[in-house]
Amino acid sequence: MTSQPGPVVAPTQPAATRGPVRIVGTGLLGASIGLALRALGVDVVLADPSRTTVLLARDVGAGRLPAPDDAPPRLVVVAAPPDVTGEVVVAELAAHPQAVVTDVASVKGAVIAALRAAGADLTRYVGSHPMAGSERSGPTAARPDLFTGRPWVVVGTERSTGEAVLVVRDLVTDLGATPVLLDAGLHDEAVAVISHVPQIAASLVAARLRDADPAALDLAGQGLRDVTRIAAGDPALWTSILAANAGAVLPVLQALRSDLDEVIGALGQVAAAARAEGVGGGALGVLAATIAAGNAGVSRIPGKHGGVRRAYDVVTVLVPDRPGELARLLADMGAAGINLEELAIEHAPRQPVGLASLAVLRGLGSELETELTARGWRVAG
Amino acid sequence: MTSQPGPVVAPTQPAATRGPVRIVGTGLLGASIGLALRALGVDVVLADPSRTTVLLARDVGAGRLPAPDDAPPRLVVVAAPPDVTGEVVVAELAAHPQAVVTDVASVKGAVIAALRAAGADLTRYVGSHPMAGSERSGPTAARPDLFTGRPWVVVGTERSTGEAVLVVRDLVTDLGATPVLLDAGLHDEAVAVISHVPQIAASLVAARLRDADPAALDLAGQGLRDVTRIAAGDPALWTSILAANAGAVLPVLQALRSDLDEVIGALGQVAAAARAEGVGGGALGVLAATIAAGNAGVSRIPGKHGGVRRAYDVVTVLVPDRPGELARLLADMGAAGINLEELAIEHAPRQPVGLASLAVLRGLGSELETELTARGWRVAG
Repeated sequence: MTSQPGPVVAPTQPAATRGPVRIVGTGLLGASIGLALRALGVDVVLADPSRTTVLLARDVGAGRLPAPDDAPPRLVVVAAPPDVTGEVVVAELAAHPQAVVTDVASVKGAVIAALRAAGADLTRYVGSHPMAGSERSGPTAARPDLFTGRPWVVVGTERSTGEAVLVVRDLVTDLGATPVLLDAGLHDEAVAVISHVPQIAASLVAARLRDADPAALDLAGQGLRDVTRIAAGDPALWTSILAANAGAVLPVLQALRSDLDEVIGALGQVAAAARAEGVGGGALGVLAATIAAGNAGVSRIPGKHGGVRRAYDVVTVLVPDRPGELARLLADMGAAGINLEELAIEHAPRQPVGLASLAVLRGLGSELETELTARGWRVAG
Repeated sequence: MTSQPGPVVAPTQPAATRGPVRIVGTGLLGASIGLALRALGVDVVLADPSRTTVLLARDVGAGRLPAPDDAPPRLVVVAAPPDVTGEVVVAELAAHPQAVVTDVASVKGAVIAALRAAGADLTRYVGSHPMAGSERSGPTAARPDLFTGRPWVVVGTERSTGEAVLVVRDLVTDLGATPVLLDAGLHDEAVAVISHVPQIAASLVAARLRDADPAALDLAGQGLRDVTRIAAGDPALWTSILAANAGAVLPVLQALRSDLDEVIGALGQVAAAARAEGVGGGALGVLAATIAAGNAGVSRIPGKHGGVRRAYDVVTVLVPDRPGELARLLADMGAAGINLEELAIEHAPRQPVGLASLAVLRGLGSELETELTARGWRVAG
């Protein structure tokens, strides 16, 4: 793996980014940025506190090692863990007085605070945060397409020059991502509510499974799997992220606890009333309002292509658990000219069959059922 | 829709269930049970407080209306909302003194408590709970295959006869589901931890999105979508379920709140310490322990076919958003002889491309990448 060059993307556009670009931290994100820039013909110089990591990144094709006669970098990208990003940015701003410096940490306010505290030159600093990642980590997992089609937040400070902002925006655009300009506070509040608090909630729900009876876990369905999927996240990384964004996460989590307290109070009333054979209507109202508030919130998540969430028809089909069967199903769908909007697969416990739930635009469900049934598929509920 | 017969399943086994079977409540579950039994040649008699609902169920082929000279039912299936199931079961036990009576409500202790309070004949009662459902409701959404391959919990009381338990177990097996025998307390604790508490958590996280900035929602990724998907559930149905299982949900939710309080306390310490430029190590330990506890819990959810959860290799591929492209991808996978274990699709915001994450058995990832790349697919991170 270490001696092979990485995959190469055919350039589809001229790059606005001009080298040398110095990448500090050559894990998944840093090495992926290097791969993408190299594919565009940009000179990339790699640095990492770990000699092994930087050599791996070089070997997968993410860039080269520094040389004594290098021209000074025009752009420095700091791709370090969140808890050390601030100090690394400070050092890079000082070491490369002509360069624009950006970072890719998933929190922004803490980085800027560290820069301010150190008296760093904020005019040349513009933060950023690509909304991309992978199940895997390290330079060998790097991909030049990691950022394709993803939002990538660009966070200037009030002292960043317009030129510096444009350099970072060009980098984002060159890498195929969609730049989203936000200020640091709004960014940190956004990731608190869309990422950090959901992570905590998923972990708390999953933690309840530790002591559950094995028979209970055998009844687990797709709902539990969906809610807890991200609970498999890395503890060290998430500790670093949550600590760095504590200020923005805290009020959201406190509001959630306040709602939770109401639910617990209502369930306590119901449980007590059930023993006395009467149920408080106010308590039931709290439960209904909680679910309704969730309905209202989830309806605000944009659907595909950034548009409003669409209501889908869902058709569920039994699929034998053999290579090629799901492909045959989707080929039959394609032959019917119906596009798939979303797909979920659920494996039936202890059965050699899966259930594929096909979401299609509202109004197309009946047609899809007819087409698939005519082609011999068994449509389930 | 109302005048067409429902789809018919070719009988693959003789039915052990003998009619007449009386189904009380002909919504999604009741009508689906009727459809499946009719396909096996069993005589089904339908009843519902709503004349429209029972006629719809008859028209989709779930059974027939009662006739004056009907033989007494051998089995009564009560498929009513959870909050009225107890009283309906009491009435059916009294009205049909030769019949075994079961119900399909998603909580069991509350039903049995209602039966005990009414002095009902518990020897002929066996509760049940099919772990199946649909995005849709009502008899027109009914499907004879709704239960195929799903777990279906069978809950006898200490007074149920062995014969009565076998009648209900036969029904479950006839309908293609997998019977899981549990007592009422264990069932209710199980659904609290695998279904009811995850529902509340998803609703609470989704509720935080109501006041979020639209820019924040534009950054939403698959993690948020997964955690909040079930928050779209019906408030009336969920109020009824949560109220009926308040006793089992309450301690799980209180334990979750206790963990949440620790997280809030730790984040509060970190936020305060950050201002004083020092971080308490104990607080970071709480955050890491919270994520690690979630790791431990989620690892207990069984994987496909009821086995242990497997670690997968995940390969992410860019798929043009046109009918048939995903099918072509999966056909290429099938041609390579590699079986798909799990699939997730993420649509890139404002881009005519989707990202398909293909999970395959560990060790097959590299081969899959090679095969797909050779066939012209662009493998992303």
